[in-house]
Amino acid sequence: MLLNRAVLLASPAANTVFTTVLTRGPVARPEIARITGLSSAAVTKAAKPMIEAGYLEELTRAERTVEGAGRPAHPLAVCADREFFVGVKVTADELIGVVTDLRAQVRAAHRVPVTDRGVDQVVAGIAALVREVSAAYSGRTHHIGVSVSGDVDRAGGRVRYSPFLGWRDVPLAELVGRATGSTVTVENDVKALTVAEQWFGEGVGTDSFALATVGVGIGCGLVVNGRLVAGGYGVAGEIGHIPVAAGDGPACHCGGRGCVEAIASEEAIVTRARRAADDPHLDMAGAIDRAHGGDAAVRAVFAEAGQAIGLGLAAMVNLMGPERVVVSGEGLAAYDLFEEQIRAAFTAQAFGAAARCPLVVRPLPWEEWARGAAAVGIQSLFTA
Amino acid sequence: MLLNRAVLLASPAANTVFTTVLTRGPVARPEIARITGLSSAAVTKAAKPMIEAGYLEELTRAERTVEGAGRPAHPLAVCADREFFVGVKVTADELIGVVTDLRAQVRAAHRVPVTDRGVDQVVAGIAALVREVSAAYSGRTHHIGVSVSGDVDRAGGRVRYSPFLGWRDVPLAELVGRATGSTVTVENDVKALTVAEQWFGEGVGTDSFALATVGVGIGCGLVVNGRLVAGGYGVAGEIGHIPVAAGDGPACHCGGRGCVEAIASEEAIVTRARRAADDPHLDMAGAIDRAHGGDAAVRAVFAEAGQAIGLGLAAMVNLMGPERVVVSGEGLAAYDLFEEQIRAAFTAQAFGAAARCPLVVRPLPWEEWARGAAAVGIQSLFTA
Repeated sequence: MLLNRAVLLASPAANTVFTTVLTRGPVARPEIARITGLSSAAVTKAAKPMIEAGYLEELTRAERTVEGAGRPAHPLAVCADREFFVGVKVTADELIGVVTDLRAQVRAAHRVPVTDRGVDQVVAGIAALVREVSAAYSGRTHHIGVSVSGDVDRAGGRVRYSPFLGWRDVPLAELVGRATGSTVTVENDVKALTVAEQWFGEGVGTDSFALATVGVGIGCGLVVNGRLVAGGYGVAGEIGHIPVAAGDGPACHCGGRGCVEAIASEEAIVTRARRAADDPHLDMAGAIDRAHGGDAAVRAVFAEAGQAIGLGLAAMVNLMGPERVVVSGEGLAAYDLFEEQIRAAFTAQAFGAAARCPLVVRPLPWEEWARGAAAVGIQSLFTA
Repeated sequence: MLLNRAVLLASPAANTVFTTVLTRGPVARPEIARITGLSSAAVTKAAKPMIEAGYLEELTRAERTVEGAGRPAHPLAVCADREFFVGVKVTADELIGVVTDLRAQVRAAHRVPVTDRGVDQVVAGIAALVREVSAAYSGRTHHIGVSVSGDVDRAGGRVRYSPFLGWRDVPLAELVGRATGSTVTVENDVKALTVAEQWFGEGVGTDSFALATVGVGIGCGLVVNGRLVAGGYGVAGEIGHIPVAAGDGPACHCGGRGCVEAIASEEAIVTRARRAADDPHLDMAGAIDRAHGGDAAVRAVFAEAGQAIGLGLAAMVNLMGPERVVVSGEGLAAYDLFEEQIRAAFTAQAFGAAARCPLVVRPLPWEEWARGAAAVGIQSLFTA
């Protein structure tokens, strides 16, 4: 079964045809030719061995094309059940696992708490979670994607630094591989989510787009000219560390001043809300309650956070020019408290035509982050 | 002669080999194979018709390789004199023209003043400048690159909006083509300079780099994953409109607040220096003189400008992760007055390993900008 995967990488044309059907299918051969620039003959030639190996199927329903008097089209589709993938998102408190099919559709999900953040304990937890979540797919999952916040070296399979876990230079791919017997890809969690959007979400069909996440941190994944931006020194997409209030803003944990994250991260909001409400025990849920209850001082804290996020998004769009921005993250629980300010600040600061870039707001539960990790696994197996 | 150019685009391999020699040559075939991933046989096969057509030459000096006991290497080089190009930079006051050879080396240069910014007058001025500067290359220049600040549609050959010229939607490529009988490429001036760096300067051998210009405006050209970032809505690289002092900063002409450009453009510096010196007639040269003379208030204006530029560079590097940043522009005349602040603010705000990104400071005279326009011409002719 694994050997057959070679047909997907047999030639650049084969690879292009497969990823086109994977991300856009079902799609008819003439449309594949149009999208890829390949000849119809080349598309047909590339598709044949993939159909034989069970990766692609020709849909039997003879769809009618819109133009042309009922010429039957036989769109190609990926056989979703041909392979299954496990994705695991590691947070400081929980491990979230999913099994997806080849089209990155979630087929099973499971969560376990993290009680000890030590490397060995987390690796053992991941292995147990993988067994549990993939029980119904026994022997049919060969690859695991793991996503972690922080500085991750995907090519080397290492977590270089993860502040929330307190990890430095952990060879996570190797450790999880040994504990599970599967091959493993490790990626930064925001980049993994960006890959899922690039291949299976809002990014499909665009040359460039951005995904910004709002929550414990403020992060951003960027796709430019069809490829994820990795950063020459492993740093990219740090929208949280754009200094939108360098003059009079608060100090940031990064050493800078007036960063978006120093104003709009969950910790920053809670700190400022405690001061505003004069309540040192207030937590995020309490701050949201107070704001919803009409507390003007706490509402102003959320409004300032929204303004900082909107300015950060505008700075990013002015620099990168994405066709579309997805805004997501666990911080969206409070989205009604700062959406207006996000949009107003973005519109005021976006330069000229960049203001036309749509902000698509979408809550993503943790399972979607785990799906992102699985999507990185799919991508790493099926691109040359 | 023009027909022979087809050998450079005969196949993707031919094109890759030619651009490799063009940007890195002289370079031996095994090194070309290593850089491009092509087989040695493919390199040799691709090079042959280009040598026959006079685009490449095999250097006769038998260089000795470093390793290996004196195996002779025959590096390939581009025949610089095979074709010549004209580049024109249009400013509000002057037209600067150069002739370059195929390696983008400047062979002749000439300037003429702009006395009337009307489209017809500027087009006539460009045509006269082209005749003058290329007189010694009569009949040997077939392509003109023109660069203009503002919003330029390179593919359509149009200047959509140029504030300094007061132009909107001018089909400049067509107009200059008609006036000169040559084919014409039009590009934004900062992007053109970025192309010159990408192909023939600091960008050679990098996957991603940035060029920031400081002067009348604060601009930035970005190359990510080997390709210029154009922007989904035609806007990208607007480092001047990162709001580094959104809270307490000055209003910007773009409608935003606290933009880098509102603090550090030439106009912003002059405005603030006039106030600091209480002299409504001070100009940029006067402000520089006063600062050099020790006027603390005017020195502070330059220091604030430097800080804003450094923060903008850090925000850009945190987002994009370039391997290298070139800082240039006519504003470098005052560079000694703000270099310290640029570097300090950059270092304080760069996120983690991003602080390792070198800032390469380089004054570029206007002729270099014109060379950038010529480089765009070279690139547009020799890439598929």
